[in-house]
Amino acid sequence: MQKEKLRLLVIGAHPDDCDILAGGTAVKYARNGHVVKFLSATNGDTGHYEKGGGQLSLIRAEEAANAAKTAGIEYEVLDIHNNGIEVNIQTRERMISLIREFKPDIVFTHRPYDYHPDHRATSMLVQDSSYALIIPNVCPLTPTLKRMPVIMYLSDAFKKPYEFVPDVVVDIDDTFEDKVRMLDCHKSQVYEWLPWVDSELDEVPAGDKERIKWLGERQLKRDGRTAERFRKQLIQKYGAKRAGTIKAAEAFELCEYGREPGENELLKLFP
Amino acid sequence: MQKEKLRLLVIGAHPDDCDILAGGTAVKYARNGHVVKFLSATNGDTGHYEKGGGQLSLIRAEEAANAAKTAGIEYEVLDIHNNGIEVNIQTRERMISLIREFKPDIVFTHRPYDYHPDHRATSMLVQDSSYALIIPNVCPLTPTLKRMPVIMYLSDAFKKPYEFVPDVVVDIDDTFEDKVRMLDCHKSQVYEWLPWVDSELDEVPAGDKERIKWLGERQLKRDGRTAERFRKQLIQKYGAKRAGTIKAAEAFELCEYGREPGENELLKLFP
Amino acid sequence: MQKEKLRLLVIGAHPDDCDILAGGTAVKYARNGHVVKFLSATNGDTGHYEKGGGQLSLIRAEEAANAAKTAGIEYEVLDIHNNGIEVNIQTRERMISLIREFKPDIVFTHRPYDYHPDHRATSMLVQDSSYALIIPNVCPLTPTLKRMPVIMYLSDAFKKPYEFVPDVVVDIDDTFEDKVRMLDCHKSQVYEWLPWVDSELDEVPAGDKERIKWLGERQLKRDGRTAERFRKQLIQKYGAKRAGTIKAAEAFELCEYGREPGENELLKLFP
Amino acid sequence: MQKEKLRLLVIGAHPDDCDILAGGTAVKYARNGHVVKFLSATNGDTGHYEKGGGQLSLIRAEEAANAAKTAGIEYEVLDIHNNGIEVNIQTRERMISLIREFKPDIVFTHRPYDYHPDHRATSMLVQDSSYALIIPNVCPLTPTLKRMPVIMYLSDAFKKPYEFVPDVVVDIDDTFEDKVRMLDCHKSQVYEWLPWVDSELDEVPAGDKERIKWLGERQLKRDGRTAERFRKQLIQKYGAKRAGTIKAAEAFELCEYGREPGENELLKLFP
Amino acid sequence: MQKEKLRLLVIGAHPDDCDILAGGTAVKYARNGHVVKFLSATNGDTGHYEKGGGQLSLIRAEEAANAAKTAGIEYEVLDIHNNGIEVNIQTRERMISLIREFKPDIVFTHRPYDYHPDHRATSMLVQDSSYALIIPNVCPLTPTLKRMPVIMYLSDAFKKPYEFVPDVVVDIDDTFEDKVRMLDCHKSQVYEWLPWVDSELDEVPAGDKERIKWLGERQLKRDGRTAERFRKQLIQKYGAKRAGTIKAAEAFELCEYGREPGENELLKLFP
Amino acid sequence: MQKEKLRLLVIGAHPDDCDILAGGTAVKYARNGHVVKFLSATNGDTGHYEKGGGQLSLIRAEEAANAAKTAGIEYEVLDIHNNGIEVNIQTRERMISLIREFKPDIVFTHRPYDYHPDHRATSMLVQDSSYALIIPNVCPLTPTLKRMPVIMYLSDAFKKPYEFVPDVVVDIDDTFEDKVRMLDCHKSQVYEWLPWVDSELDEVPAGDKERIKWLGERQLKRDGRTAERFRKQLIQKYGAKRAGTIKAAEAFELCEYGREPGENELLKLFP
Repeated sequence: MQKEKLRLLVIGAHPDDCDILAGGTAVKYARNGHVVKFLSATNGDTGHYEKGGGQLSLIRAEEAANAAKTAGIEYEVLDIHNNGIEVNIQTRERMISLIREFKPDIVFTHRPYDYHPDHRATSMLVQDSSYALIIPNVCPLTPTLKRMPVIMYLSDAFKKPYEFVPDVVVDIDDTFEDKVRMLDCHKSQVYEWLPWVDSELDEVPAGDKERIKWLGERQLKRDGRTAERFRKQLIQKYGAKRAGTIKAAEAFELCEYGREPGENELLKLFP
Repeated sequence: MQKEKLRLLVIGAHPDDCDILAGGTAVKYARNGHVVKFLSATNGDTGHYEKGGGQLSLIRAEEAANAAKTAGIEYEVLDIHNNGIEVNIQTRERMISLIREFKPDIVFTHRPYDYHPDHRATSMLVQDSSYALIIPNVCPLTPTLKRMPVIMYLSDAFKKPYEFVPDVVVDIDDTFEDKVRMLDCHKSQVYEWLPWVDSELDEVPAGDKERIKWLGERQLKRDGRTAERFRKQLIQKYGAKRAGTIKAAEAFELCEYGREPGENELLKLFP
Repeated sequence: MQKEKLRLLVIGAHPDDCDILAGGTAVKYARNGHVVKFLSATNGDTGHYEKGGGQLSLIRAEEAANAAKTAGIEYEVLDIHNNGIEVNIQTRERMISLIREFKPDIVFTHRPYDYHPDHRATSMLVQDSSYALIIPNVCPLTPTLKRMPVIMYLSDAFKKPYEFVPDVVVDIDDTFEDKVRMLDCHKSQVYEWLPWVDSELDEVPAGDKERIKWLGERQLKRDGRTAERFRKQLIQKYGAKRAGTIKAAEAFELCEYGREPGENELLKLFP
Repeated sequence: MQKEKLRLLVIGAHPDDCDILAGGTAVKYARNGHVVKFLSATNGDTGHYEKGGGQLSLIRAEEAANAAKTAGIEYEVLDIHNNGIEVNIQTRERMISLIREFKPDIVFTHRPYDYHPDHRATSMLVQDSSYALIIPNVCPLTPTLKRMPVIMYLSDAFKKPYEFVPDVVVDIDDTFEDKVRMLDCHKSQVYEWLPWVDSELDEVPAGDKERIKWLGERQLKRDGRTAERFRKQLIQKYGAKRAGTIKAAEAFELCEYGREPGENELLKLFP
Repeated sequence: MQKEKLRLLVIGAHPDDCDILAGGTAVKYARNGHVVKFLSATNGDTGHYEKGGGQLSLIRAEEAANAAKTAGIEYEVLDIHNNGIEVNIQTRERMISLIREFKPDIVFTHRPYDYHPDHRATSMLVQDSSYALIIPNVCPLTPTLKRMPVIMYLSDAFKKPYEFVPDVVVDIDDTFEDKVRMLDCHKSQVYEWLPWVDSELDEVPAGDKERIKWLGERQLKRDGRTAERFRKQLIQKYGAKRAGTIKAAEAFELCEYGREPGENELLKLFP
Repeated sequence: MQKEKLRLLVIGAHPDDCDILAGGTAVKYARNGHVVKFLSATNGDTGHYEKGGGQLSLIRAEEAANAAKTAGIEYEVLDIHNNGIEVNIQTRERMISLIREFKPDIVFTHRPYDYHPDHRATSMLVQDSSYALIIPNVCPLTPTLKRMPVIMYLSDAFKKPYEFVPDVVVDIDDTFEDKVRMLDCHKSQVYEWLPWVDSELDEVPAGDKERIKWLGERQLKRDGRTAERFRKQLIQKYGAKRAGTIKAAEAFELCEYGREPGENELLKLFP
C-alpha cells in the first residue's frame, strides 16, 4: 500500500451502514496506517421493533463506538432522527463542514438509488455538498479542502434507473473477520432489528460465540455475492489466480461529482 | 383468479389518474371480490381552464365518488392543493399512515419520471414511505403492515432516465367498458380539462351517449397503444392466440423498493 | 345547565395537558350530556426520562383512552412528535379539518405564551386555524362550521407579555375526584415524568391507593391556587357564599380571534 | 400639506384591506400630489363563499385596479395564495425588494395581533424586512433605501397582548366619499364576501345606487367608531372645535422597528 | 433561418452558465432578429476565492449586463443566493411567472444531472414549472402561455444515470468570436474564479488582448470537444462536407416534459 | 462574589451583540473566576456597507476571538448567515445541544421584541430550546443539563408589547474600560458598520487612541442611559450612596421559561 497516509470518510445513513458496506475496506486501510472515519447521518432511533427514542440512539452510539474501537477507526453519529433526515441547505451546510473538518481524500456514501429514504437523503446531501467543499464563501468559518476528494458510492443491488457500476472491487478476505467483529458490536441491529425485518429473529443463536458465527456466515453470503457478481473486476485487479479464491469483497462506484481520478490514481488509492 | 382476497391500493396524483392508468385492472379485481381503493394525493383544484378553488375540488371529489360507485371500489381524495404537493416528511408520514390503514397487498403509483410535478411528488412520497411501512417507531399510532406490499409503477411513455419496463401487462378487454364508465364520471376532466389541454374542446360531442362513445374511442387508442407496445409481454402471459386479439391493456412495473415478488407470486397476484 | 347539547373541544399539546387544565370542566359537561373531546396535538413520545419513541407514544395513547373512558369523553392523539410540532400551513390545515369535523361550540387551547414550545405551537396553530373554520375555499373537502366557535385559552401562570385574564372561572369541586381519576390514567406522566421533572420521583407512593391520594393532593394544590387567584371572579359568578367554599377551580380566557360571546351567551355557555 | 412629495406604501394582506383601513388617508395624500401605493400581499383567492381559485384572484386584481384608478393611486396584488402566506426568509426578501423599489417615506401595515393569519403574517414580514431595507448585502441587486422609512400599523380592535395605540389619527371626512367609491370597486368583497361572513348577504341592496349608499353607511359606522374611540387624539391634533365635528377617522400606530420620527416630523408627515 | 421571430429563453444557474453553454447559439439567433434572453437563477455571490457577498453579486450583474449588450440579448439575474437555491413551490411559482412573462418558444436549462447543486436545482425548477405554464389556475395573475414551449437541456459530460443525448447540435463557428466576447465580459468568472478552481490562475495573461485570446483558446477546446463528440450529428444536420470543418459546436437535448416537436418542427426551430 | 464557579452563556445574534449588551458583566464574572462564553448565532456576513460574504464573516470571527482574549472569555460564532437565521426545529436542536454542552447556570439572550429579525429569531430559538434542556429524549446524544438554567433577557428600549423589565441591574463601572477594549476589537462593527448606519462614519477619528476614546464615550452614553433609566433598581441593589455614583450599567430581565430563581438565589447569582 502507498506510503502517503490517506484519509477515508465513509458516510452512511445509520449506525451500521458503513460497517456493512465498507467495513472490510476500512479495517484494511486502518491496519495500514491510514485514517478512517465512519459517519452515521442519523442516530438510528427508529430502527427497532421494541426499543426506540433517545435510549435507542444511545445504544446505537455506544455500539458504533465499540465498532470503532474494534477497527481502529473513528465513528461519529449525528443526532438527526432516523427516518427524519431531509435534503435541505441547512443540513447540506452541516455536511459540508463535517466533510471539510475531516479533510478526506476519499468520501464514500450510498447511491441516491437505494431502498431507504435515509440512504437516498444521505447520498443527496453528500452530492449537494461536494462542489462547495472548495468554495471559500460557503460555510466560510470552516476552511475549505485544498483538493476535491474522490467520492465513491457504496454498493447496492438496485437496477433502476441504472445498475451499480463497480469502479473498484476490494478483496476483503484478510479483514473479513474484523469486519464481522465490527458488525458484532452493533448488537441491536444485527441480532435484533435486521433479523426481525427478515423474519429470522428466532434463528439468532443464544450464545455469544454461536451468534457471531451465525453473523459471519450471514455476512459472508452477502460479501460473497459481491465477489461473485464482480468476479470479472476482481480478476482484472488481482489477476485470475488470486481473484479466483476471493470469498468476500466490497465494491465501490465513482461518483461523477467528486474528483475524477485517472486509472493510475485509482490504483494508488486502491492498490 | 386466486381465492385469497387481495387488497389493491392505487395512488395517483389527481382524481382521474388512477382511473386512466389502472381502471381496467381495478374493475377486474373488484369484480373478483378483491378490495380496491383509489387514492388521489391532491384535490384537483387547479386542473381546469375556468373553474378552480374549493368548488372545483368538490366537483372532483364527487366525480371520484361516482367513479368509485360505478366500479365497486373505494376512492379517497386528499385535500392537498393540486400543483401544491411537496415531498417532505410531514406528507410522507401522512402517506405512511394512509397506506398502513388500508393494509394493501399491492400499491400502485406513478413513476418518479413523469411530466407532471404532482405525479413525481406522489411517486417519491410513496417510495419514501415504503420502507417505513413495517417500522413500528415511525407513525407509531398506526399499526404497521405485517408484510411489505408489492409496489408497482403505473405506465407512462417517458424514456429518460430510463424507459418504463413492463413487469406485468394486463388484458383489460373484459373491463374496458367499465373503465370508460368510470372515466365518464370525471366529467370536468375528460370532457373539459383534458380536451382543453389538447386543444380539442370543440371535438367533445354534446349528447351524453355521443360523448361517452367519443371518450371510449379516445381511451381505446391509449390503451390500445399500451397493448401494441407490450404485445410481446402479452403473448408471454396469455399465449399468442389470446394475446393477438387483445385490444386494450394496462401495464405495470415493479418498484424495487417494495417487496420483490418471485415469478410465482407475481403470477398469483396477476393471474 | 342549558338544555342545548354543547360540543367542547379541548386542544392540548400533550396527552395530559387537557386533563390537567380542563379535566374538571370536561367531566362536568360530559355528565350533563354535552359532548367533550380532548385532542392532543402531539403523541408525547419524548416526555419521559427513560422511555421514548414509538412505545412511549403507544403508552400515552392508551393512557389517554383510559382517561377518556373514565370521563365519558372522546380523546384523540395526533401522531406528531413531541417537541417536533411546527407552525406551518400544512399542520394548520390539518388542525382546521380536525376542528371542523368535531363541530365544536367552544374550543379550548393553550395561550401562545407558555413555557413549552409545543404549547405555544399548538396555540398558534389553533389561532391560525380560527378564521378559516368558516371559509369554504380552505380545506374545501371538509364542510365548514356554520358558526365560528368561541375560543378560550387554558390558564397558566406566565405574566409576559401580559398575564392570563380569566373570563370564566369554573368551580370544579363536584368533579374534582373524577378529574383526579382521569389524571391517574396518565401514569407515565403523573407518576413518572412530571415528578421526575420536579425531582420528586421518590415521593411518589408505591401502592395504587396511596398514589392516587398523593396525586389528588398535588392537583388540589394546583387547582386550589387557581381558585385562590381568581376568588374575585368566583364570587362574581357563584356569589360570595358558595365561592368562599370552592376548593378547586379551572379558569379560561377568551381568545379574541374566536366568536365574541356577549355576557349573556357566556353565562349560557358556562352557567 | 407639506410641499415635499411624500411616498406612502400601504401593505395589506388582501385586496381591500388597504382600502378599508387607510383609504381615506390615501386619497387625501394622492389629492395633494403625494404618491400612494397599495400592496396586497395575497391574491385573495379564497375569501368567497362560492367563487375561488384563479378566477377569483383575477376578479380581485381587477377590483383593485379599479379602486386604484378611482383614487389616483397605484395598486399591486402579489400572486400569493390567500390563507397561504407564510413568514419565511424567501418571502421576506421579496418584501424587502418590493418596499425598496417603491422608496417609501412611510410604510403602513397590519399589527401582528389581528384575527386573520394573513394579516399577522403580512405584518411580521414587513417587520422582518424593516432593518434590512438599508443593508446593501441583503437583496443586493435592489438598491437600498437612503433612509429607513417610518412604519405605521393600521388600526384594529384587538386588546391582547396590548391594545392599539394611536400615534396619528386622521380626519377623513373630506375624502370619505372617495374612500367609499374605492370600496365600491371591491364588489366581490364588500357586497359578497364580507356580508356573507356577517350573515348579512340579504341586506345588500340590489341597485347600484342603493348598494353604494348601504356600503357608505356601513363604513361610516366603522370609521365613526374610530373617530369616537380616538376623539381625544383628534382634539389634540385638530383642536376641539373641528375635532368635535369629525365623523370619520383612520388611526395609525408607530411601529418601533421603523424610523422614529420626532413629534415635529410626525406633524410634517401628517399635518 | 425562418422568418417567424422566435423567442429563446436560456435559464442557467449562475451568471455565465448560459453564455458558456449556449452563447454561440444565442448570438446566432439574435443576429437573425430573434429574441433571446438569458436568465441566471442565482446572483453568483459565492463563486469566488476572495470576493463575496453583495458586492460580488453586483459585479456579476454588471458583467451579465455587459455580455448582454455585446450579444444583443436580454439578461436577467435573480437575487437568489448562489449555493442557496432550493427546489420548492415558492421558487417554482416564481419561475413559472418569469417564463410566462417572456413567452418563450424554446426554453433551455441544465440537465438535473450535473455537478453543481445549483444547476440541478435550476433544472428541477424548470421541469417542475413546465406543465403549469399553460394552467390558468397556477400563478393566475400572470397570463398563461398559449402553447407549451419546447424545452431543451444544455449539454454536459455526465454519464449517470444516463448520458447526455444530443437532439440538436449547432455549428457555432460563425458566432464563436462573439461568444468569446460575451465570456470576456464575465471577468470575475473567466479570469478569476474558473481558473482558480482549475488551479490555473497564474496562466491567465495580464494584457486584455492576451487574456481574451487565452480565453478563446480555452473555450475553443471545450466547444471543439462538443463538435468532436457529436460529429455524427453534425454530419447528419449539415452534411459531411460542412460538418467536417466545424470547429465549435453547442449541443442540446430535448426534455420530455416540454412540447415534443416533430422532426420537421425541430428543423424549423434549428435550421 | 460567591465561591461557586458559575457558568454564564450569552447568546447574541451577531458578533458584537453580546459585548455591547453584557460585556461589562462578562468581564466582571470572568475576573472573579467564573466561566463566561459568548455565542453569536450568526456569522455577521451582511452587516457592512462595502464588505460582505465569506471574508466579512472571517473578519467578524477574528474580531470576536480578539474580544474574547481581551476579556478572558470564550467566544463562538455560528456559521449561519446574518439576516438568514430562521426559527425552526433543526436550528432549535442545534441550539439545545450547544447550550447543553456549555452547561450554563445562566443563559442571556435578546428579548423576542427587538428591531432586528435576527435578534428576535435568536431569542425565540433560545426560548424554544429552554424546556428541552432537561429532556433526555430530545437531542439524546448530548447529555441533558442536571438543572434548568436561569434565563435572562438582554436589555433594549422597545416598549411593545411590553417594556423591558429590569430584574437585575449591574454596576459595570469597574469593568467599563475592559468592555470598551472588547468593543474596540470589533473594528468592522464599531468603527465601520454601526457609524455608517447612524450616518456618523466621518466622525470616527483616525488614530487608534482617538478612536477608542470616541468609542468609549459613545458607549458610556449608552450604558449611562441604562444606569439613569434604572437608577431606582441600582439604589435598591447597591444602596443610595454607591448607586448615585454609578456611571455605566447593564440590565437583565428574567425570562419566565427558564428556572425561576428566588430573590435569594438571584442575589447569589448577581451579588
